[in-house]
Amino acid sequence: MGSDNMYHPDSFPELKNPPRILLGPGPSMVHPRVLRAMASPLVGHLDPYFLEIMERTQDLLRMVFETQNRLTIPISGTGSASMEASLANLIEPGDEILICINGYFGLRLVDMAQRYGAEIHTIERPWGEIFTADEVRDALAQKSAKIVAIVHAETSTGALQPLGGISRVVHENGGLLLVDAVTSLGGIPVQVDEIGIDVCYSGSQKCLSCPPGLGPITLSPRAEQVLSERKSEVANWYLDLTMIQKYWGSERTYHHTAPISANFALYEGLRIIAEEGLEVRCERHRRNAEVLWQGMEDLGLELHVPLENRLPSLTTVRIPEGVNGAQIQNRLMMDYNIEIAGGLGELKGKVWRIGLMGHSSRLENVTLLLAALGEYLRS
Amino acid sequence: MGSDNMYHPDSFPELKNPPRILLGPGPSMVHPRVLRAMASPLVGHLDPYFLEIMERTQDLLRMVFETQNRLTIPISGTGSASMEASLANLIEPGDEILICINGYFGLRLVDMAQRYGAEIHTIERPWGEIFTADEVRDALAQKSAKIVAIVHAETSTGALQPLGGISRVVHENGGLLLVDAVTSLGGIPVQVDEIGIDVCYSGSQKCLSCPPGLGPITLSPRAEQVLSERKSEVANWYLDLTMIQKYWGSERTYHHTAPISANFALYEGLRIIAEEGLEVRCERHRRNAEVLWQGMEDLGLELHVPLENRLPSLTTVRIPEGVNGAQIQNRLMMDYNIEIAGGLGELKGKVWRIGLMGHSSRLENVTLLLAALGEYLRS
Repeated sequence: MGSDNMYHPDSFPELKNPPRILLGPGPSMVHPRVLRAMASPLVGHLDPYFLEIMERTQDLLRMVFETQNRLTIPISGTGSASMEASLANLIEPGDEILICINGYFGLRLVDMAQRYGAEIHTIERPWGEIFTADEVRDALAQKSAKIVAIVHAETSTGALQPLGGISRVVHENGGLLLVDAVTSLGGIPVQVDEIGIDVCYSGSQKCLSCPPGLGPITLSPRAEQVLSERKSEVANWYLDLTMIQKYWGSERTYHHTAPISANFALYEGLRIIAEEGLEVRCERHRRNAEVLWQGMEDLGLELHVPLENRLPSLTTVRIPEGVNGAQIQNRLMMDYNIEIAGGLGELKGKVWRIGLMGHSSRLENVTLLLAALGEYLRS
Repeated sequence: MGSDNMYHPDSFPELKNPPRILLGPGPSMVHPRVLRAMASPLVGHLDPYFLEIMERTQDLLRMVFETQNRLTIPISGTGSASMEASLANLIEPGDEILICINGYFGLRLVDMAQRYGAEIHTIERPWGEIFTADEVRDALAQKSAKIVAIVHAETSTGALQPLGGISRVVHENGGLLLVDAVTSLGGIPVQVDEIGIDVCYSGSQKCLSCPPGLGPITLSPRAEQVLSERKSEVANWYLDLTMIQKYWGSERTYHHTAPISANFALYEGLRIIAEEGLEVRCERHRRNAEVLWQGMEDLGLELHVPLENRLPSLTTVRIPEGVNGAQIQNRLMMDYNIEIAGGLGELKGKVWRIGLMGHSSRLENVTLLLAALGEYLRS
């Protein structure tokens, strides 16, 4: 094969990654210490050394989720895999689920839930708005639901969903609250136990600032009980928590080979959060977002989400009339190696999406972006 | 949170990975260049630079699969995820599948296939033996099957399954041949096009010698057609190739955020294979395995699989009467940082499993292991 032209080594140049400043909806920039952890020599997935790292990683995940939940682990896939794990493990065919849709990821929850045979009810709000507890109460008064699924931080809109009132309503109705915290965990308080979230999932590549590839998930004792009392088998083998928990639990039963290097990286990323302190870290996310918001308004730009519902980790900025949004994105990339993103779904072509997550949430990045945007918009 | 004792940074020491010599059933050792690739700074999952790496990675995967198949990609999960992707995408409820079971991974295929509503037929051989084309022909004469699934390299037994005759039988009967190449791809010729495999999947952490976390998969044009003509939606969102192929294809439609760093690592690992040459690499695997086999016999040990069916990448050695297998494994780990594994399933307690895969398949590792084992068995 070596002599075959198509596969001549010269056709496959060495990696020469450009030094991107990642200010899109994720992945965020990865701390050099986390990159170094990715390069740690491998050990086996049942090596006592790795089992120890697994346990400490679970403790650290409990720290960022702010929970005591036993079943708190990283799923061996991206945030979408942990989203699917949440649904696949809790839904049995015919179960009723209420899904709150105010953006792209609400729609994704619907797409996934129907594949597991759920009977789906939905409520909707325009993209960028949020739900009130009363809206959820009214929906549950009309149609009961075993699970209520809602997105805490909508990456497609930049809206932050308050959860306290909704949690009370869901539990008064005997349901389980399932929360997407992909773009909040590690940058915005999620407070799983305080709020009473039953299933919460996230991704490694947003405010946790690790490479994509792991999806932290946590189940409340009540959700665990529902899982253990299933009548039907989980319809998804790779994401079947009844088996996976035996690898992460004391049995250490082989299920699949964990992505070992990604777990080292997650451990290091979570250590950095423990060192900074979760509260301090959330304040930093908020502070840098406020600088961005003020700067955007000073440039005459309009923010899509009103201040009270605005997500510190992801800001949607309306593209002004007469400005070519994609062209500005290209110039940022060409001139400054800065990545920001355009809108998704309903907001395609209407907004830019600017992420300030984890290691990307630094004043130098905000100031540079504002300076560059100012330069382009004035010219 | 920073002041909370449970999460005090000192409770979470820095990574200090032991320098393991990985001679178990996987993961194998990772080449330093691949580790360095893991530590490359991140770029976005739609960054033109990353899209270019994706395309070249697909070319390199076609090289190791020895195929021209368009739909050749790494699944964003471990080998088990690519196994499930194979079944989830090809099976519709009620479809008949013949699964050949001669080890642990045949059983896993059954477990997964039933979750997708397949009507499962099985044939079985004792663990360590292989199937003949006649056995498959007889089974298909009794019960037809849309898919015949078989394991090329059974990691649990060390048997290598010849596929040429079986492929002819399957295609004469109008079926699709689905092959597990988790422990062969990159170390033993898989020859997807030459043999006529319709769906072939593998994992990154065996003979490809990358960290676990990606599961290469390839579909023949016929399998692609079956996929495109499905009447029902794929029952698994994360592994739905009808959507994933739009991200890897020219549309570049967002599905999930690819594990970017793992893909850099895979690219570098595949480059190393292109440089060595696939044929030369397979010879190296064979040559080092032969040294191991001869050395084991010189030590008076019995190999579980007869020479003609023996897998170069994974050797099963019978644990002699009166020897504590687990104790020997522990001593290897303590004295030499060497990992080998015990048996799985039917072979638990009966064999050691010794892997010589990818960067682990080196003469120095074989010689050291034989010397250490000789020392223990003589004492």
